[in-house]
Amino acid sequence: MMNEGFIYLDHAAATPVDPLVLDSMLPYFSELFFNPSSPYAQAVKVKRDYTEAKRRIAQNLGVQADELVMTAGATESINIAFSAARGKILVSSVEHSATLSAAKKAGDLIKIPANNRGRISPESLSRLMSPDVTFVSVGLVNNELGTVQPIEDIGRIIEVERQRRIASGENNPLIFHCDASQATALIDIKIKRLGVDLLTLSAAKVYGPKQVGLLWVKPGILLAPTIVGGGQENGLRSGTENVAGVIGFATALELASKRRSGERQRLQKMRDQMAQSLSQEFPEMIISSDSKKGLVNFLHISFPGLDAERLIFWLESRGVMVATGSACAANKGTRSHILEAIGMDDRAIQGSLRISLGRLSTEENIENATRLIIEAVNLEQARVR
Amino acid sequence: MMNEGFIYLDHAAATPVDPLVLDSMLPYFSELFFNPSSPYAQAVKVKRDYTEAKRRIAQNLGVQADELVMTAGATESINIAFSAARGKILVSSVEHSATLSAAKKAGDLIKIPANNRGRISPESLSRLMSPDVTFVSVGLVNNELGTVQPIEDIGRIIEVERQRRIASGENNPLIFHCDASQATALIDIKIKRLGVDLLTLSAAKVYGPKQVGLLWVKPGILLAPTIVGGGQENGLRSGTENVAGVIGFATALELASKRRSGERQRLQKMRDQMAQSLSQEFPEMIISSDSKKGLVNFLHISFPGLDAERLIFWLESRGVMVATGSACAANKGTRSHILEAIGMDDRAIQGSLRISLGRLSTEENIENATRLIIEAVNLEQARVR
Repeated sequence: MMNEGFIYLDHAAATPVDPLVLDSMLPYFSELFFNPSSPYAQAVKVKRDYTEAKRRIAQNLGVQADELVMTAGATESINIAFSAARGKILVSSVEHSATLSAAKKAGDLIKIPANNRGRISPESLSRLMSPDVTFVSVGLVNNELGTVQPIEDIGRIIEVERQRRIASGENNPLIFHCDASQATALIDIKIKRLGVDLLTLSAAKVYGPKQVGLLWVKPGILLAPTIVGGGQENGLRSGTENVAGVIGFATALELASKRRSGERQRLQKMRDQMAQSLSQEFPEMIISSDSKKGLVNFLHISFPGLDAERLIFWLESRGVMVATGSACAANKGTRSHILEAIGMDDRAIQGSLRISLGRLSTEENIENATRLIIEAVNLEQARVR
Repeated sequence: MMNEGFIYLDHAAATPVDPLVLDSMLPYFSELFFNPSSPYAQAVKVKRDYTEAKRRIAQNLGVQADELVMTAGATESINIAFSAARGKILVSSVEHSATLSAAKKAGDLIKIPANNRGRISPESLSRLMSPDVTFVSVGLVNNELGTVQPIEDIGRIIEVERQRRIASGENNPLIFHCDASQATALIDIKIKRLGVDLLTLSAAKVYGPKQVGLLWVKPGILLAPTIVGGGQENGLRSGTENVAGVIGFATALELASKRRSGERQRLQKMRDQMAQSLSQEFPEMIISSDSKKGLVNFLHISFPGLDAERLIFWLESRGVMVATGSACAANKGTRSHILEAIGMDDRAIQGSLRISLGRLSTEENIENATRLIIEAVNLEQARVR
């Protein structure tokens, strides 16, 4: 993987395709290019390889292959999931904009509040629960703060409400969706344990190709297709299958399984060291990522009174790539709704950096990055004083 | 491109990714992998390359880049197009199942009849036109017969009806969509000349990657997004951009432009020779593709009384890949709705082969294929007698 001349601190926005992932994809572009629906043996082999890749993905997640709907990425998966949502919809206030947009399109969005680390409490979900809620959506790992949500506890509360509805003869469905896109590189997801009905994943966040994702659908959950046509993916998502992409996704998940525990240790050590050095230098710095309960590759820091955009441009000129917030929000020039949701004030939001480590991080480049961030902040502080 | 040990006669179902197309895509997997929405220079460069690829595609089609919505393939493009359809919808009876499914989902599907070559007449469209028709969808090239539809003539009839509505103070919109997926490898599409409002294209049919397509949207036509989220593609199609795929699509269209006229001559000659040899051997054979007005790489032949499935399996064992109909229909074991629509009887439908030539076709392999098809048909005829 290329890592020369720059220091990449934005693995939450995009991950490079692992060379082994690309190798597994390459035969399916120009050689095994056949339409998986064609009748002759060579096409049947392609279909078999595609099905086998789905089986490998399913095994990795502890589910069945025919429960997976392969999509063109997390955003599409989320949109298909929300086809089951109507009326009152509970969504955590710190979700990715794709989830918030899908919820607004589907029904009445009610936001579940989060604490100052972006964590929602099962109790606050309990308080908002009512007989007319049909759909709950909470992401496993927050994309700006790395906060890991208590999905299993939330699942239990939802199950209690379901049992109450059954006992009282109510037949309003209650479906639980989890966007786990940010999690797969570092968390071993066994879907059944989470207690969810629908789960979204993205290959692009786990060193796989962009525009490849999946939606796991618990048997019995009825969804409406967003794209109709040839009837692929059990009729839920028509279109000639992305054979190369899905095979790349399978390889990426298997590589993540092998490397996860080593990577967690490696990244946590570097992340903690960076956090410590920066805290020592800048006691006024706010850390909003949770060093204990958050994902170990995230470090979210705020310097109230500074302009993070200026920090980013200075760092970029030294080869350091870092984000102010999610890429989507950055692109639209809007303030992070996630930082607003955790009660951060404007001055702190304006001075916020999201740092996310990953496979391109090395001890050396993290040390250099730390030194350069210190230099950048010192320069900016001198300028605004 | 791999072409050893087999003869591929199914370019309408899938085309191999051209090595030059793949080369243009490769840097965007592991090196230039950045999220196009990220703020730092390297990501801005990726965004620029993506935008430049859209500009190259737009130039190839004679339109503006910001009129293109990049999608995960033709099926998705068609679904977005049909977000503007409601009430009465006129669709040619020989459309791909993706268009028919999208029409049924959107409103009341009225089929425009076709002649025995799959061609619809502008007059039959005129007869079905009424003040409450909101949407018309006709494919440029039929995916089983290669029939080229008179899109410009149809566009003129639609324009007359639009003018009539304006003159009589009616404000019911009338939108014209064309699925040109099958056309791009051999027809130079200049969208403005066609008189359409929406046009669908697929990279997978023009030696580009699968799961990459586009919808051209005429300025002023209002569509609803099928996928909401980060707001990419002018808000019509959210999700992190498929940078590698769109760059591959641009390269594929440019290669098609360079090769089109040479390929048309080369393929027509081989196709005509094959048709002639088969007709001489089997005078009872029905040819449903139009040798004059159809696309030059298609040859659709029927042997009433024979079982095409058996022909396909015998040919496959000799390395010849050929289809009975569209890959989607083949996969579901259903009879071709297209052959039914052109009035073909059951016995002829059961004995039909769709042959589609392309870049993998050479004089030698087409001669061999012709010989093998003759052998297969003779064997089957001997068996059923």
